[in-house]
Amino acid sequence: MQKILNVPTEFVNEMLEGILEAYPTQLKAVDGDNHALVRADAPVAGKVGITTGGGSGHLPLFLGYVGKGMLDGVAVGDVFQSPTAEQMLAVTKQSNSGAGVLYIYGNYGGDVFNFDFAAELAAAEGIRVETVVGADDVASAPKGEEARRRGIAGIFFLYKVAGAAAAKGLSLDEVVAVTKKASAQTRTMGVALSPVTLPAVGHPTFEVKAGEMEIGMGIHGEPGIRKSALESADQITEELLTAIKNDLDLKSGDKVCVLMNSLGATPPEELYIMFRHAKKTLKGYGVDVARAYVGEFATSLEMAGASISVIRVDDELLNYINTPVHTPFFTQA
Amino acid sequence: MQKILNVPTEFVNEMLEGILEAYPTQLKAVDGDNHALVRADAPVAGKVGITTGGGSGHLPLFLGYVGKGMLDGVAVGDVFQSPTAEQMLAVTKQSNSGAGVLYIYGNYGGDVFNFDFAAELAAAEGIRVETVVGADDVASAPKGEEARRRGIAGIFFLYKVAGAAAAKGLSLDEVVAVTKKASAQTRTMGVALSPVTLPAVGHPTFEVKAGEMEIGMGIHGEPGIRKSALESADQITEELLTAIKNDLDLKSGDKVCVLMNSLGATPPEELYIMFRHAKKTLKGYGVDVARAYVGEFATSLEMAGASISVIRVDDELLNYINTPVHTPFFTQA
Repeated sequence: MQKILNVPTEFVNEMLEGILEAYPTQLKAVDGDNHALVRADAPVAGKVGITTGGGSGHLPLFLGYVGKGMLDGVAVGDVFQSPTAEQMLAVTKQSNSGAGVLYIYGNYGGDVFNFDFAAELAAAEGIRVETVVGADDVASAPKGEEARRRGIAGIFFLYKVAGAAAAKGLSLDEVVAVTKKASAQTRTMGVALSPVTLPAVGHPTFEVKAGEMEIGMGIHGEPGIRKSALESADQITEELLTAIKNDLDLKSGDKVCVLMNSLGATPPEELYIMFRHAKKTLKGYGVDVARAYVGEFATSLEMAGASISVIRVDDELLNYINTPVHTPFFTQA
Repeated sequence: MQKILNVPTEFVNEMLEGILEAYPTQLKAVDGDNHALVRADAPVAGKVGITTGGGSGHLPLFLGYVGKGMLDGVAVGDVFQSPTAEQMLAVTKQSNSGAGVLYIYGNYGGDVFNFDFAAELAAAEGIRVETVVGADDVASAPKGEEARRRGIAGIFFLYKVAGAAAAKGLSLDEVVAVTKKASAQTRTMGVALSPVTLPAVGHPTFEVKAGEMEIGMGIHGEPGIRKSALESADQITEELLTAIKNDLDLKSGDKVCVLMNSLGATPPEELYIMFRHAKKTLKGYGVDVARAYVGEFATSLEMAGASISVIRVDDELLNYINTPVHTPFFTQA
């Protein structure tokens, strides 16, 4: 796909400058490094800090959710690359008001390595850090091997729950407990309809042929579980939801929230066609949709495709999900 | 581009079903017709009704802005097609609390014809209707022939101002006056980097070659003012802003709000690269950016490309733009 760029190697730097120019009252850079961003009012006195980080190219992930009711800080890597431990440490220090810091990030090798290292460095400076890793992608490893699963769009629900719990004044241990509870109830499955081109590479780094699709492909082009001819919206929706239902062991009477997410180029019109069938399918299972999010929440540059995330909620989780939020990329009244 | 669809001819119907399923507490259909949508609490007692309408394929336009602080109702056409006068009349009746109704829609022949007819039908039923047409596309006709210009993303600012003024309790005449004032201060210019495929057609209906771009192309593929090799983000941003500056006669000391809009497939990362240069360029003119919106506000299915809208604001307009809003596709705290 054609891109609006200057120097491809400056893609992330220029993007970050633009974001800081757009939201000067909401975000600030730590020590002049635009790759280490925190809420403009960080640290928030008495509140557990919620921080994240990851590669660029996934907006609104990760930095778009830094703000009131969600995240305190984010370390921003290059396109599809982990940020450094030093950047994460800078974010940690600026997010810590003394109540400790929770790391929530997607389960990728580079991120795990750098965040663990940052946590050690923070501990050496007397900051208590806990970690909950997002590993919601059902397609990336079989049941029983959840620890190997990649983190994708479902991390939105972890941010939402952790952010609301921290804003309410819960302790670090309490925030960790409810975020782990949210993580255990969250699953995602996606489908890719086109590859993406990294600005500094200039050509697609993997292939999805015209007329085909790949179920379960990762947001960096990681292999999925099935390639086939492109199916109908209803067929795709049903396949994704069936895998989620089986993995999450959804039962009649369960209540869920649904996140219908575009991977980039797929327009909202198509997401609503999918959501229509998702709600019908869940109803068929006897499962009630308490809240729906439809749009771009975790993307892969201009990839065509979509993912469905489902979180099974009880009153506690739903209450945190329903709490208002105000961030540069996401506002909930 | 590849699409997630069922039967192409059911594209709009299924999308509308999905939207109503996603926002049951915010939207309702009038008399069972999903192409005539209003706020769930319409008509709002004592308030001037603000309504719109237009073809599908432009989400969040038009229906995404129906809600608290913006629009009361919308008539929804088929892809890139005007809704009918009957649908517009149904929306008008359900949006009127007795204080009258303002139509705000884009300046396209089919829409003008149908909305004017609906206004006549409404008048015959004793409902006072006024109209402000969005005609912000600088590229679509030269200065002096503003009445021929097409309406594109800048209509967002008209909705925002009219919605806030109506919510504040202004009379129909007062809402019309401030909406006309907003319209006179709003300009947009766009660039297209790829064509789009209508679901029911199945192949692109116009052409933008790889390695090329078209400045000023309309959101239905209407011809622009210049085709050329694809330029850099900074060059494109400067060309669009220069045209807007000249047309709006922007002067040092002016204050503006900026809407940096993706036409669909262009990811937010690229919009922020453009915004970075837009803010710098405006600063060079001595123009201050009071508020920025960056994202998908008026699209053309999966078209790659972007548009820049600028509205020159005084305290009154800025105050209305800053007023909180809560709609299915757009929430402002």
